Amino acid sequence: MEPIYFDHNATTRVDDAVLEAMLPYFQQEFGNASSRHGYGIAARRAIDKARKQVAEAVGVQPVQVVFTSGGSEANNLFVRGAVDSLKPGNLFISAIEHPCVLKPAQAIARRGCDPWPLQQLAINADGQADIAAAAAAMQTNKPGLVSVMLANNETGVIQDVAAIAELARSHGAYVHTDAIQGLGKIPVDFTALKVHAMTLSAHKIYGPKGAAALIVDKRLLLKPLIYGGGHENGLRSGTENAPAIVGFGVACELAVARLAETAQHVAKLRDRLEAGLTGMGAAIFGGQAARIPNTCYFALPDIEGDTLVVKLDKAGFAVAAGAACSSVNPGQSHVLAAMQIDPMLARCAVRVSLGRDNTLQQVDDFLRATQRIVAELRQINSLSF
Amino acid sequence: MEPIYFDHNATTRVDDAVLEAMLPYFQQEFGNASSRHGYGIAARRAIDKARKQVAEAVGVQPVQVVFTSGGSEANNLFVRGAVDSLKPGNLFISAIEHPCVLKPAQAIARRGCDPWPLQQLAINADGQADIAAAAAAMQTNKPGLVSVMLANNETGVIQDVAAIAELARSHGAYVHTDAIQGLGKIPVDFTALKVHAMTLSAHKIYGPKGAAALIVDKRLLLKPLIYGGGHENGLRSGTENAPAIVGFGVACELAVARLAETAQHVAKLRDRLEAGLTGMGAAIFGGQAARIPNTCYFALPDIEGDTLVVKLDKAGFAVAAGAACSSVNPGQSHVLAAMQIDPMLARCAVRVSLGRDNTLQQVDDFLRATQRIVAELRQINSLSF
Repeated sequence: MEPIYFDHNATTRVDDAVLEAMLPYFQQEFGNASSRHGYGIAARRAIDKARKQVAEAVGVQPVQVVFTSGGSEANNLFVRGAVDSLKPGNLFISAIEHPCVLKPAQAIARRGCDPWPLQQLAINADGQADIAAAAAAMQTNKPGLVSVMLANNETGVIQDVAAIAELARSHGAYVHTDAIQGLGKIPVDFTALKVHAMTLSAHKIYGPKGAAALIVDKRLLLKPLIYGGGHENGLRSGTENAPAIVGFGVACELAVARLAETAQHVAKLRDRLEAGLTGMGAAIFGGQAARIPNTCYFALPDIEGDTLVVKLDKAGFAVAAGAACSSVNPGQSHVLAAMQIDPMLARCAVRVSLGRDNTLQQVDDFLRATQRIVAELRQINSLSF
Repeated sequence: MEPIYFDHNATTRVDDAVLEAMLPYFQQEFGNASSRHGYGIAARRAIDKARKQVAEAVGVQPVQVVFTSGGSEANNLFVRGAVDSLKPGNLFISAIEHPCVLKPAQAIARRGCDPWPLQQLAINADGQADIAAAAAAMQTNKPGLVSVMLANNETGVIQDVAAIAELARSHGAYVHTDAIQGLGKIPVDFTALKVHAMTLSAHKIYGPKGAAALIVDKRLLLKPLIYGGGHENGLRSGTENAPAIVGFGVACELAVARLAETAQHVAKLRDRLEAGLTGMGAAIFGGQAARIPNTCYFALPDIEGDTLVVKLDKAGFAVAAGAACSSVNPGQSHVLAAMQIDPMLARCAVRVSLGRDNTLQQVDDFLRATQRIVAELRQINSLSF
């Protein structure tokens, strides 16, 4: 039997309609969108259509969409591209940003030429950016650039991006939000969030890997990360990945069309899951805060997260210990550290992230399997002491 | 009827075997390769296999392969990544490099912090880098980094990369070659070319858009362009595009296995094509130099290239005027300018780049169509004077 996939914040299965839309661009309309013959024109038209679909999903104009190869590239494009277009100032980054925002910011803080001092926005115990602390910090160190993610990939906690953006704008700063984990799970509106830039990605919304976007306000100047033929208004050179971009466009359209239905469905599953886990004594990280509806980040005391993930994998359930994106660099979650979670409890963290194809039956099966594994592990623990 | 595709240096149709290998990674084995469950492990194994296939195609170890989203990204990663790991020195770039090598080099030459003086390697009238001139230039300005493409995308002319690499190494410089247009058309051996880094791309060898690689010598230090989760040995963060990488691996294997057969086939077609075009009075750019066997870059005096391309497109033939990659920025070819071709003749440049599915019949049909269009255009020209 195929294992149950409960790791939708890491990546998602490509939707049937998305793959169907992509397929013609591998072998029939396979042209380079920069070519001026019929093959090229067909690819260009397909990319234009996708640009419109992505723009409409977050309420912007197509010209504001800069396609990139992935969310990491888009986040680096904002951080590095904006820094290199501005006079050095303070770079404010929330303490729970994804490594693809944190690490380029750290590299800029460390560099010899025009370094930007890095200021971390504090996070409270519920996983939310502390607005009062942010206001105080920005009084002390005037912000130049600010980046706060819309929803955290580990906890699912939603940040008050608009409030932070207003605060930052009052100091003349430019604001970015990584909205990758929000899209398709909660409404995402570029204007309402009051940001100058926003990152979106296809493969978290049943689209393909290899396509993402940085949405930009016209007033934001950026230098490209990748120079060359001048594609994407000079902001991102390289032959466009037409099949992936086409898939991204369709995935965005579906994400918005299905938003209410998906959110309601996964919230019901998530609530059942959390009721069951709490009954087993689990702590739910960020459980007191507003969250995207599909994410449950929990810890069963004394049950090491990595161990539980491996046992659950053997039992047929794919879940995550911490974020997949940094599993190549295991270690304690920087998100839980920012929330000042006891490191002993943080080591027990496991993330279940649900998707639209998951069922109540799968949740119930998961709870039973977890209960059995936990009982076994507790018995081993008690024997070894 | 489907138009005849004669623009294989711009991009290629994905091979049936490549697409077949990719398909399972969209919907069945769709995991994030960084995930530790079964879905993640399957994706990781597929990427490992592709890494081995790419490495074997150019005679290196898998650990030397850094996957990127495309050739432009890989070329930028070399130029910007190597520059930022070294003390400033002279950056030698051949005058006919692709914009994704030239433009990042120009940006580095212009920047305020640690700029690197840019030195262009001269090109002779046959489209080859002038080795004697390079030796003299490197005596005057000691090279730090050197980049010379293996085969030019417009003319198809093959450069003596090994000779330039030896020269550069004698000054302690690091050397890179963009081998994108060489792979699958001529043998490409990393060691024989004596370089420290090499760029390869999937979509020029019947693989998908969205996958490419920078092949690196272990002694070459690089800083990443994209920071984040630390993928690709810390050199390129971001969720791996598993389907595209899998396709790239298979495309590399096929490119090497079919090399002799493909080269012989397209050379036969190219020779027939050039005999016909020469008979019509065409000049063949780089025709006196060693070239990859699929490329014919010609000019019919007084027949503007752009016009001919549009007319041929209407007649059912997809060819290029200049390089597709810079068709968004039309203007005179910098390659022909470097070869000191008369600008009036350069405006007439048209590129035919053949692929393994093209036939002699298609070449003959193309020649007939060209003859007819040229006769019409000449008649219009004569009437308007």
